[in-house]
Amino acid sequence: MSMIGGGHRSFIGVVHRIASYMTEDYKLIGGVFDVDYEQGLQFARDMELDESRTYQDIDEFIAQENQLNVDERVEVVIIVTPNFLHYEMARKLIVAGFHVICEKPVTTTAAEAIELDELVKKNNVVFSLTHTYTGYPMVRQMKAMIADGAIGKIQKVDAQYYQGWINPFIHEKEKRAQVWRLDPKKAGKSCCMGDIGVHAFNLLEYATGLEVDRLLSDVNTLYADNPLDVDGTVLLRLKDGTKGVICASQIATGEENNIVISIYGDIGGLKWEQENPTYLTFMKEGDPAQIFKPGNPYNSEFANASTKIAPGHPEGLFDAMGNLYKGTARAIRNESLTEGAFPTIKDGVRGMKFIEAVLDSSADNNTWKEIN
Amino acid sequence: MSMIGGGHRSFIGVVHRIASYMTEDYKLIGGVFDVDYEQGLQFARDMELDESRTYQDIDEFIAQENQLNVDERVEVVIIVTPNFLHYEMARKLIVAGFHVICEKPVTTTAAEAIELDELVKKNNVVFSLTHTYTGYPMVRQMKAMIADGAIGKIQKVDAQYYQGWINPFIHEKEKRAQVWRLDPKKAGKSCCMGDIGVHAFNLLEYATGLEVDRLLSDVNTLYADNPLDVDGTVLLRLKDGTKGVICASQIATGEENNIVISIYGDIGGLKWEQENPTYLTFMKEGDPAQIFKPGNPYNSEFANASTKIAPGHPEGLFDAMGNLYKGTARAIRNESLTEGAFPTIKDGVRGMKFIEAVLDSSADNNTWKEIN
Amino acid sequence: MSMIGGGHRSFIGVVHRIASYMTEDYKLIGGVFDVDYEQGLQFARDMELDESRTYQDIDEFIAQENQLNVDERVEVVIIVTPNFLHYEMARKLIVAGFHVICEKPVTTTAAEAIELDELVKKNNVVFSLTHTYTGYPMVRQMKAMIADGAIGKIQKVDAQYYQGWINPFIHEKEKRAQVWRLDPKKAGKSCCMGDIGVHAFNLLEYATGLEVDRLLSDVNTLYADNPLDVDGTVLLRLKDGTKGVICASQIATGEENNIVISIYGDIGGLKWEQENPTYLTFMKEGDPAQIFKPGNPYNSEFANASTKIAPGHPEGLFDAMGNLYKGTARAIRNESLTEGAFPTIKDGVRGMKFIEAVLDSSADNNTWKEIN
Amino acid sequence: MSMIGGGHRSFIGVVHRIASYMTEDYKLIGGVFDVDYEQGLQFARDMELDESRTYQDIDEFIAQENQLNVDERVEVVIIVTPNFLHYEMARKLIVAGFHVICEKPVTTTAAEAIELDELVKKNNVVFSLTHTYTGYPMVRQMKAMIADGAIGKIQKVDAQYYQGWINPFIHEKEKRAQVWRLDPKKAGKSCCMGDIGVHAFNLLEYATGLEVDRLLSDVNTLYADNPLDVDGTVLLRLKDGTKGVICASQIATGEENNIVISIYGDIGGLKWEQENPTYLTFMKEGDPAQIFKPGNPYNSEFANASTKIAPGHPEGLFDAMGNLYKGTARAIRNESLTEGAFPTIKDGVRGMKFIEAVLDSSADNNTWKEIN
Repeated sequence: MSMIGGGHRSFIGVVHRIASYMTEDYKLIGGVFDVDYEQGLQFARDMELDESRTYQDIDEFIAQENQLNVDERVEVVIIVTPNFLHYEMARKLIVAGFHVICEKPVTTTAAEAIELDELVKKNNVVFSLTHTYTGYPMVRQMKAMIADGAIGKIQKVDAQYYQGWINPFIHEKEKRAQVWRLDPKKAGKSCCMGDIGVHAFNLLEYATGLEVDRLLSDVNTLYADNPLDVDGTVLLRLKDGTKGVICASQIATGEENNIVISIYGDIGGLKWEQENPTYLTFMKEGDPAQIFKPGNPYNSEFANASTKIAPGHPEGLFDAMGNLYKGTARAIRNESLTEGAFPTIKDGVRGMKFIEAVLDSSADNNTWKEIN
Repeated sequence: MSMIGGGHRSFIGVVHRIASYMTEDYKLIGGVFDVDYEQGLQFARDMELDESRTYQDIDEFIAQENQLNVDERVEVVIIVTPNFLHYEMARKLIVAGFHVICEKPVTTTAAEAIELDELVKKNNVVFSLTHTYTGYPMVRQMKAMIADGAIGKIQKVDAQYYQGWINPFIHEKEKRAQVWRLDPKKAGKSCCMGDIGVHAFNLLEYATGLEVDRLLSDVNTLYADNPLDVDGTVLLRLKDGTKGVICASQIATGEENNIVISIYGDIGGLKWEQENPTYLTFMKEGDPAQIFKPGNPYNSEFANASTKIAPGHPEGLFDAMGNLYKGTARAIRNESLTEGAFPTIKDGVRGMKFIEAVLDSSADNNTWKEIN
Repeated sequence: MSMIGGGHRSFIGVVHRIASYMTEDYKLIGGVFDVDYEQGLQFARDMELDESRTYQDIDEFIAQENQLNVDERVEVVIIVTPNFLHYEMARKLIVAGFHVICEKPVTTTAAEAIELDELVKKNNVVFSLTHTYTGYPMVRQMKAMIADGAIGKIQKVDAQYYQGWINPFIHEKEKRAQVWRLDPKKAGKSCCMGDIGVHAFNLLEYATGLEVDRLLSDVNTLYADNPLDVDGTVLLRLKDGTKGVICASQIATGEENNIVISIYGDIGGLKWEQENPTYLTFMKEGDPAQIFKPGNPYNSEFANASTKIAPGHPEGLFDAMGNLYKGTARAIRNESLTEGAFPTIKDGVRGMKFIEAVLDSSADNNTWKEIN
Repeated sequence: MSMIGGGHRSFIGVVHRIASYMTEDYKLIGGVFDVDYEQGLQFARDMELDESRTYQDIDEFIAQENQLNVDERVEVVIIVTPNFLHYEMARKLIVAGFHVICEKPVTTTAAEAIELDELVKKNNVVFSLTHTYTGYPMVRQMKAMIADGAIGKIQKVDAQYYQGWINPFIHEKEKRAQVWRLDPKKAGKSCCMGDIGVHAFNLLEYATGLEVDRLLSDVNTLYADNPLDVDGTVLLRLKDGTKGVICASQIATGEENNIVISIYGDIGGLKWEQENPTYLTFMKEGDPAQIFKPGNPYNSEFANASTKIAPGHPEGLFDAMGNLYKGTARAIRNESLTEGAFPTIKDGVRGMKFIEAVLDSSADNNTWKEIN
């Protein structure tokens, strides 16, 4: 594998590498590790990589790698650049026939994501989008149980994603300037919805297997001179008419990464909380609530294949992302795959549509917008 | 004290009596215990009450009690009849000069509640509405801390009230017919919002000391032939512009009485959950979260005056309602009162306005409605 | 009912009264409310009681009440005096034919408790000892499930009771002098074991239905010049050979009232925590853990008869003690009783034997002592 | 690095490799991956390793590697063989000058561990023992806070380690035969204490910085014809006289990996639970309890250096073990080290002494045994 971005100055690069190591399916070969070529080279040296595979930019990367034999050439490329570059990098790599693992958000507009979706099909490559939370064993167990009818027909969906990390910055203009996510040039159209609302949306569609059809939103910039949303509530209508809600906030002061997804059906409910990811609560009508935990024989095969250690031993975020890498590797090797093994460009498309619809609805007097 | 309703066939009657006993300020004298006079008399006998103070109906009650000397006459009357009778009973009692403790919902329309509010002022009586959750020590601590500036300026409010108890009934018309709350004749205009949404609304205004100004809602009857809401989400705009959300449901299968109220300000957040009522989480920007528990010296006077036992010993719903009775007794005796010691007719008015606005908004294409 | 002690200067008196009110089976008539007769009289006046039934001392109480007709005479007497008086009061009342509800510890020595046990049998009265925690619905559910074979044959028992309240006093001799529980003249032979260890012991025998046969202990006074234990660990051997442990402490700084009882059998385990008393965790071999909560149809009749409100509404310590009062009332009326409805003098005898054996073992080089 | 054991048939091998990958400090070169050389070779091929560095046995490994130049030669060897081989492998590697990372238990007797300790000193190598739980950020925060005086002088220590995994096997002789840990030939003298009791012991000494001086134990084989302990309680006396307790069990049916360590001092208490490893509870006398979570600025440098992601994102067991690998790598490179960065042979020695003393005490009528 190679990386675009991810060198010494990247925070997320090491998370991806560790995830890739976990499956023992990937080996880092080279890449474009930094916009500053010297920094990228230094990174390659420190990692004891072959410097000749460290490139100046994406075009050189593609040109040079494509001259190598197929069995030597990099198979899969990880895009961990700043968000606004995702689209360009992905487009070029897909067209050149590389498999892609891309950080989220996939692009900055839905139109770009749709274009990538078409290119992925046309070029027959694997495109993996790291919606990391879908890699947790108990999220996969939730998906499997819902698909299996454990909660019956879904009648209410609720996803919450509350953080407080923007609070120290939001109240003064100078402090806001320190936060790239609050800068429309770097972050795109949305801060809160683009960064975390879309995770809640993705988890909700992932777990239920249902699609959101329309939404009505109320986003919140907190200050009139702050251009991007930092909070918002989204009313949902799924394709089958089911109602639901997504609540997301980055000004929920004191919250760290409080994701809760609750799905209720006519014979039971299921609830998962990201900060305690080894617990899945199953509330069956009339029975005591049950606490499912990873690695136990009562889980689905899919959930247990996503666990590497014995019950009672927590696995964390790296393990979750590792599961996405594992699924992606299987896809690249054309091995059989459980549905939901990793998010693809399709998930990217839906995510971008969600963000755009949220912003449209809120801007258009909180009216309903379709996302299909 | 006397009761209107609350005899052997009443579920809630004993809850009120136990709460009244807890303060050792009240003594049950008589009342109209049942629409069936014989049943009411039997209840009086079983409770070893003076049968001559058991009356046929509210009019006889008022006529007879008013002939007694002031120091013999019943001072306060508890209304625990079916909901649709609250208004009539309350109106007659207030006009006759009795203090009133009334189960929720106060009336079936906002107009009736406004009328009662005026009568309460004119007749100079105490009117106590049993929004029981406001009696919990840690809800009072939350209110006190917010008033005291512990979380700074409020920037986001969130109240959730999820239950699943209607799920077993909602899917078949015959089963729905067993549930009086689903019958518009008995329950009024709303099921979910009137029964529990209004609790979330009341808690939110109680804890913050702020008023909701406008709302936009999306309520849910689940089936077209079910006339009343069983679920809904409400977007909120407080008077000072703060945004928020209330999520309420009775089809959240498996949930029992899952109330969570989260208030976030610019220097901290506070969170309380009804099913674990002895914990209040205070998340101050930059500090480890703190868990406040009842009866400890670090709490406010108001919170600790609402606790009867040493730290570490759980108190429950009866204790919470007992605190409302205690505050009401102090009001009747004209003793000094902490703000928020019990909900009054004012809270009843606001609650009814909330319910009506929620239904209006949802019926009117999910548009914003004022509630002032 | 009457009270010996429990007037204005008593903390625990009101707890008992509230518990008695909860069942609507008891009515306070009179008693000896204070060693200072004037204070007792004032209490009677404030409670609007008949002053003629307020007595100078226990002997006058017995003499006067026994001159009344049976249907007028007080039936049951609540002993809430300082601990060292329990024995004398109980003895006199039992001999005079009164039913007795007695605060814990029943006496200050096992010999005294054994004597009371014989007198109870001889005089055919009901003796109820308020080991309050056995009144919690979920403790009763635990007992019912174990009796019902839910966890199979018991193979390990563990009871922990950790508090920290003595920490602020224990480190200086002058501060210790403020704590009557640290004074052998007032508290008897033991502080920690007598106050809370015996609760853990009682809960353990209550839940399992098994008896402890022998123990080996290691108690801790923390300072050489502090005569009474404030902490200790007790190794247990049940009659059937099962091993277990009781850990108790009053110097577990920061702990409030942290009781955890865990019982493990060959097909499952059960765990209950006092500070979250509405949850009972059932861990069946091979299945996801289940969370039992009060008031649900899946519980035993015994547990549900100990609940007064709908699922999801917490009940607390007063409710637990109220359940003991309810059971006692049924016993006095000779109504049918579930085993374990309230603790009797038998439980008092076992508790005193436990405390004495713990102190003996620790004093005798941590060797095994029998408690039968 | 190289591995002794850890090939396809090993469960723990991959856990070590992933941990090593996480720090990006290690690279797998070769080893003795299996007792069956062919299997070992196959593993090397599958991992795309240089087959010439895959050896038949430890002696060939040492002989061949020692002929290579220092900068080519393997620096550190990971021992993940069955337990009874740890001693022999470690001894040979240490004498030959290799750094060693060794799975727990370090040896099968204290005498062997003491011998290794001396060899480590004499040969000046790094010896790292993977007591994984000490790698958790919040365990390190606990250690740092205690060292910093946050809880004052320690007055009570409590460590519990409850599992239920042996329950399905323990009740029938044929099933026991399937469990190598129950076979004295493979597991050594102890099952429960050697496997998990020693973890509790290690955590307790690690967190407090204090040493256990004497103990008295009561171990439990459950059946007379089962030679090894599956449960036990250990009374502790620390060097400064502080009392404490270790409870360990493998027959606590339904428990997965329930480690709780609670340390109480004269100004506060600290508590950590392995199954929820991102929470550390600090209970300061008189204050609300505080919940410390990884990655926040309020933590010690040591704790935060053990975290790789932003607050609110759980890290799991692999991350904990990765922290030990990171510390070991720093030691090998002679970089500065925080005390407690990884467990060494010293920890191995103390662990073996603990196990032997526990078994001696229980066998010798539950009398006190020294462990120094």
